[in-house]
Amino acid sequence: MIDAPYLLFLGDAPDPLAAKVAQGICDWRPDMAIGQFRLEGCKADMKLTDMTIAEAVEAGAKTLVIGVANRGGVVSPLWQDVLIEALASGMDIASGLHNLLRDEPALVEAARAHGRTLHDVRIPTVKYPIASGVKRTGKRCLAVGTDCSVGKMYTALAMDAEMRERGMKCTFRATGQTGILITGDGVPLDAVIADFMAGAVEWLTPDNDADHWDLIEGQGSLFHASYSGVTMALVHGGQADALILCHEPTRTHMRGLPDYDLPTLEDLRDTALHLARRVNSACEVVGISINTAALSDAEAEKYLTEVEARMGLPAVDPYRHGATRLVDALS
Amino acid sequence: MIDAPYLLFLGDAPDPLAAKVAQGICDWRPDMAIGQFRLEGCKADMKLTDMTIAEAVEAGAKTLVIGVANRGGVVSPLWQDVLIEALASGMDIASGLHNLLRDEPALVEAARAHGRTLHDVRIPTVKYPIASGVKRTGKRCLAVGTDCSVGKMYTALAMDAEMRERGMKCTFRATGQTGILITGDGVPLDAVIADFMAGAVEWLTPDNDADHWDLIEGQGSLFHASYSGVTMALVHGGQADALILCHEPTRTHMRGLPDYDLPTLEDLRDTALHLARRVNSACEVVGISINTAALSDAEAEKYLTEVEARMGLPAVDPYRHGATRLVDALS
Repeated sequence: MIDAPYLLFLGDAPDPLAAKVAQGICDWRPDMAIGQFRLEGCKADMKLTDMTIAEAVEAGAKTLVIGVANRGGVVSPLWQDVLIEALASGMDIASGLHNLLRDEPALVEAARAHGRTLHDVRIPTVKYPIASGVKRTGKRCLAVGTDCSVGKMYTALAMDAEMRERGMKCTFRATGQTGILITGDGVPLDAVIADFMAGAVEWLTPDNDADHWDLIEGQGSLFHASYSGVTMALVHGGQADALILCHEPTRTHMRGLPDYDLPTLEDLRDTALHLARRVNSACEVVGISINTAALSDAEAEKYLTEVEARMGLPAVDPYRHGATRLVDALS
Repeated sequence: MIDAPYLLFLGDAPDPLAAKVAQGICDWRPDMAIGQFRLEGCKADMKLTDMTIAEAVEAGAKTLVIGVANRGGVVSPLWQDVLIEALASGMDIASGLHNLLRDEPALVEAARAHGRTLHDVRIPTVKYPIASGVKRTGKRCLAVGTDCSVGKMYTALAMDAEMRERGMKCTFRATGQTGILITGDGVPLDAVIADFMAGAVEWLTPDNDADHWDLIEGQGSLFHASYSGVTMALVHGGQADALILCHEPTRTHMRGLPDYDLPTLEDLRDTALHLARRVNSACEVVGISINTAALSDAEAEKYLTEVEARMGLPAVDPYRHGATRLVDALS
């Protein structure tokens, strides 16, 4: 659907976390990204070659992928000139932002004039059902977090990669724009109409072979005042057999909410498990995924050891050390 | 916005609960409904005069209000002839269904031909923000249920009526189609895009006088596999100071989910309070509202006495006995 390779547009990202779409593509489909485009003041860096639009086209880029998310998902006016230049130079544009490329008259006009395509990957293209709550065959694993942006998608992608390597039956189920841009399909859950959220998750993770695992991309956090409803729909629509707790140990407050502390891993475990067992009484918390990107090797090891002892569950950073032990915990 | 009086269209309601929109209008704005229209097999009855379209127009009806909800909110093909007749006879149509009047070509054409208006009250008309989680001034009360359709809206409306009678500052805050049809404004929460649900609730219940109470209409249930995400957004967006637990004691399974038992009131109390305190540490569960419609007077009294003793909280049926004790519990 979206032509590769990509030029990753990082815009004026206020911090590295804001560029998690671009980071996800680099980490899981590195062959698809041939360069990055950054505006002045951009605080994110994918360590790709910085390219102008002309250089990217020369290098073969087919699509400019907006790899950065603003609060509220707005297409910034600052970006507009670059995007129009990309269209005029022969690239398509793909975006997972809430505010749509197709709602920007200048972009629509430029795309039309130059025969290019605007891909809004987070627009639901399916009429999702109301959730039925009926038990489905096959196994499902869901990552839940103490906060947003703590590594839930990475955890599921890393487990998916590990399971494929072992020859296990599995599917990564994307529920957000990055996952959809990486895998080509999924449910843009935070853009779904409220009443159909859980039904969309059921639709995404249908009956399957008894030994097949869906690795469901988590969203938000049950403890995040802005996004908890989306997470709740994942917990109830997902019918997880296994939950992975995700956490970032250096976070001082909930993302975007300076007045809110993070919950403890114990609180996340108890709250998520209680809610998840509502739809699958066999659900268990099987492991803990810690995003140790901000820690040194020694600090990471110390922290993981401590969490593992305290919680009595395997605690790993799947990006740093692989997902072997998390996949082992599913068996 | 919507011209009164109304003819309440009950369609082919499969059971009385399906007509809760019509019932709400009859109970809280009885002067606005002058008759009802029922199709063959209709299992709901508002005890209003059954009227043909011609009789309703003759009696002065200005708007046919669709007072019944189908699963998924579909405009049934069975209804179409009646709706077109109403438009041709000079009535507007108002609907709170998910599927829109404006998306039915035959209705749009008939409305155009006869100069009538189609009101889709559940379409959000506001661009809601992402929730900020910032603490707001004023007080808020939210009704949460063991299930859907257990009396959450009634509880809030009855408390609103009681507080107005006492001269207290209060506002009923509608979050569903019935509430919006009754009060003329509100947020159609289950039609809001997932990411903006909690923000819509914050928008609906802004800063207010320190002694002003918002009575927030609840939706769904934290324990309902289909709709729990919407409820979660109300709990986190609402920042309730006071929670009222709502329950219907004869329900044998969760509405629409035959495989699901209802949670206990204790489980509802603990789960809702834990989640609500995330955004307002002062939140308390202050009372219990039991929908005793299916019980005799003696059975209702026995049940309420037992629940009150067991839970240590005032337990009343506000529709049967008024909301005096629930309002007392706020003080």
